[in-house]
Amino acid sequence: MKAILDLDTGIDDALALAYAIAHPNLELIGVTCTYGNVTVPLAVRNTLALLELLGKNNIPVLAGPSPDGFRPSDISSFIHGHNGVGEVLLPPATTQAQSQPAAEFLIQAVHEHGDDLVIIPTGPSTTIAAAMQQNPSFAANSHLVMMGGALTVPGNVTPWSEANISQDPEATDYLFRHTHDTTMVGLDVTLRTLLTTAESARWRATGTHAGRIFADMVDYYIRAYATTSPHLGGCGLHDPLAVAVAADASLVDVLSINLKTDTTGPTRGRTIADETRLDAPPTARVAVEVDSERFVREFVESLEKLFGDLYKPVLRPKRF
Amino acid sequence: MKAILDLDTGIDDALALAYAIAHPNLELIGVTCTYGNVTVPLAVRNTLALLELLGKNNIPVLAGPSPDGFRPSDISSFIHGHNGVGEVLLPPATTQAQSQPAAEFLIQAVHEHGDDLVIIPTGPSTTIAAAMQQNPSFAANSHLVMMGGALTVPGNVTPWSEANISQDPEATDYLFRHTHDTTMVGLDVTLRTLLTTAESARWRATGTHAGRIFADMVDYYIRAYATTSPHLGGCGLHDPLAVAVAADASLVDVLSINLKTDTTGPTRGRTIADETRLDAPPTARVAVEVDSERFVREFVESLEKLFGDLYKPVLRPKRF
Repeated sequence: MKAILDLDTGIDDALALAYAIAHPNLELIGVTCTYGNVTVPLAVRNTLALLELLGKNNIPVLAGPSPDGFRPSDISSFIHGHNGVGEVLLPPATTQAQSQPAAEFLIQAVHEHGDDLVIIPTGPSTTIAAAMQQNPSFAANSHLVMMGGALTVPGNVTPWSEANISQDPEATDYLFRHTHDTTMVGLDVTLRTLLTTAESARWRATGTHAGRIFADMVDYYIRAYATTSPHLGGCGLHDPLAVAVAADASLVDVLSINLKTDTTGPTRGRTIADETRLDAPPTARVAVEVDSERFVREFVESLEKLFGDLYKPVLRPKRF
Repeated sequence: MKAILDLDTGIDDALALAYAIAHPNLELIGVTCTYGNVTVPLAVRNTLALLELLGKNNIPVLAGPSPDGFRPSDISSFIHGHNGVGEVLLPPATTQAQSQPAAEFLIQAVHEHGDDLVIIPTGPSTTIAAAMQQNPSFAANSHLVMMGGALTVPGNVTPWSEANISQDPEATDYLFRHTHDTTMVGLDVTLRTLLTTAESARWRATGTHAGRIFADMVDYYIRAYATTSPHLGGCGLHDPLAVAVAADASLVDVLSINLKTDTTGPTRGRTIADETRLDAPPTARVAVEVDSERFVREFVESLEKLFGDLYKPVLRPKRF
């Protein structure tokens, strides 16, 4: 299955990127960049640098639209660091983003690959909604597995709104009302997937540059979570779980419903069933249960292997 | 299975009462009365009258606590009529309520019948929470199947609160935090169960007093729904579905989680997963899918048979 990520490249986006590269079921054919954890230009810079670090700087990176003057929230900067990657110094990439707008690239990819393509948005829905507005065939034919929203649990920005949705509730509402196939991987399941420093230590132990950088980023993220969500005992693997579900739907149980996003009133940004479409054929699947033990195990092992395979030290043969 | 209903006897409570009597899996051993659609005294009066109409005036009826000076909301009176039973004239009962407080009766019944008893609350949680507060063993050993709440869909009193919960959010929150076994049958499923005048006509066609009265009540309810929820095309079978699930859990798919009720802030009255108990053993099951075709069919047929069997005309044998 071909895959395109739509990332606002903070730390769990970086993990999602690595997993999309590592996962045997997915072939990453592009990354579009949106805002949220960071600005679009920083998301582009981080994505290019991470792809180069992972030996995949041939994968195209494209910039999506951004609200004028967007700055990440204080809490985003606290969780992901001001540079989006936990204040870790990433060597800058030698490559550049494509000039094509992200929405155009997405529309073209769906036209070209159809059911053989899954799009995995892990930030606000702005770019996806733009593609749907520009091209109804994109809305009808794209398959989305998005990280975002909270159906059965409270939000993380307000008691009813999840961070990605809160950035652009109108876009997510448009997405929910026009999609023909969206799987929502929200806080309902991502908060049940925890990574601790025991796992990041395994990546560091690969002895590779990538392993160390990813371990450092995740440790920063885990420390931030210890402050913001001490009851969890680790960090939530939000964005990587969306990649995992896109690659292997059997990891989650889903509820098939029609969704909407509240755009007015006190619950602006809430994702909830559309009560006027209860009996219409459902266009969304909401993940409500997850085999987190299997997901975390497969995820940690995949990245360990990815990092370990990257820069094998060249051993000089001993002379006899 | 023995059953006790906790009703605020409006129209769908009356349907729940009839179904608890008609259902082959349930033995109704008592009805406690709460407030909501009507006041407690009116709930008692309606319950006694309905039991007599259905030939079951031997079943004990008990009054629960009520907030001082409670009056039903305008919308409740619109939906259920000022008398709670769609302005239908119910012949008054010849019996009276027991003098024992409802909570005491519930505690005693759980002590006596344990796992062979299900309690089915279809109104605010006030009485159930009182029983839990008075007797921790009641909280630990009672099995509840409650109509109330909305997890995946908006509320019906506000966009986040269902009518029963909105009456006493603190009580439902106490219930959710102390129960060991509660099945929540909320708007998630009850709005998918529709009754139309085609079904009530079958009850009227039984030619019995009870059949006519229940058909008249339901037609009033359906007319109210046509005003308040025209997109549904009928009336929701809220309370009867809780009875059905108590009798036959296979009618619904459930999500096993730990629940809470928001008691402060803008979303007061919302039922949602408790994010601090995501990994604790779940104490609640929330119905999220329902086989509404089978439920409505069995419900309509059961009541048709109940009414039809009640007052069989005495046929004089023909003389030859």
